[in-house]
Amino acid sequence: MDDEIKQVIIVRTDIEMGKGKLAAQVAHASLTSYFDAEKRDKEVAREWLDSGEKKIVLKVSDEEALTKLYTAFRFKKIPCALVSDRGLTQLPPDTKTALGIGPWHAKEIDLLTKPLKLL
Amino acid sequence: MDDEIKQVIIVRTDIEMGKGKLAAQVAHASLTSYFDAEKRDKEVAREWLDSGEKKIVLKVSDEEALTKLYTAFRFKKIPCALVSDRGLTQLPPDTKTALGIGPWHAKEIDLLTKPLKLL
Repeated sequence: MDDEIKQVIIVRTDIEMGKGKLAAQVAHASLTSYFDAEKRDKEVAREWLDSGEKKIVLKVSDEEALTKLYTAFRFKKIPCALVSDRGLTQLPPDTKTALGIGPWHAKEIDLLTKPLKLL
Repeated sequence: MDDEIKQVIIVRTDIEMGKGKLAAQVAHASLTSYFDAEKRDKEVAREWLDSGEKKIVLKVSDEEALTKLYTAFRFKKIPCALVSDRGLTQLPPDTKTALGIGPWHAKEIDLLTKPLKLL
């Protein structure tokens, strides 16, 4: 567990989404962030797939918290993806809904996500 | 829309999962099914990514319904992935939680999923 690889997905709790909609946003963030990780470091991505794809879903209370985290992860060059909804169904266009991080070294992710709670 | 490509994820509603756990299972099904689709038909997978990765989350009421659908999609050679939870946290080991289907031609998926409701 010392160099665990994991993926974290962070969602906003201040917007109204049905369970299915929420799950689709998380899946979108997961896949897009995975592609970013694979581009950045094929070995880390592969190790994550081979070790059971650990995924953790955390929450923040608003869009500002989400975009600040996105900026911080980009600054640290940790693979990530900010998901905007196209607003075709339940939300206004371009609503930021979720942030995918990694797969990446858990220790490096945790430095920035430690204060956040599980969804 | 005549040859729309989409991904469908089907989840069971008869097991107790928190929202975050559920979203993680959906993400797992989405990613694993995507890899199956990419292996089967790179062009379909690419077209889906380029067209905004449409994802729909549907529900079934028990494990039997989930595994029957899995068998049917496999029989039709439509890319798919059945997700089992390892049972480390909220569920007994090897609980089947979700079925990812596609990305694939929407019309072919719909033939088998038409009776199902949105989660």
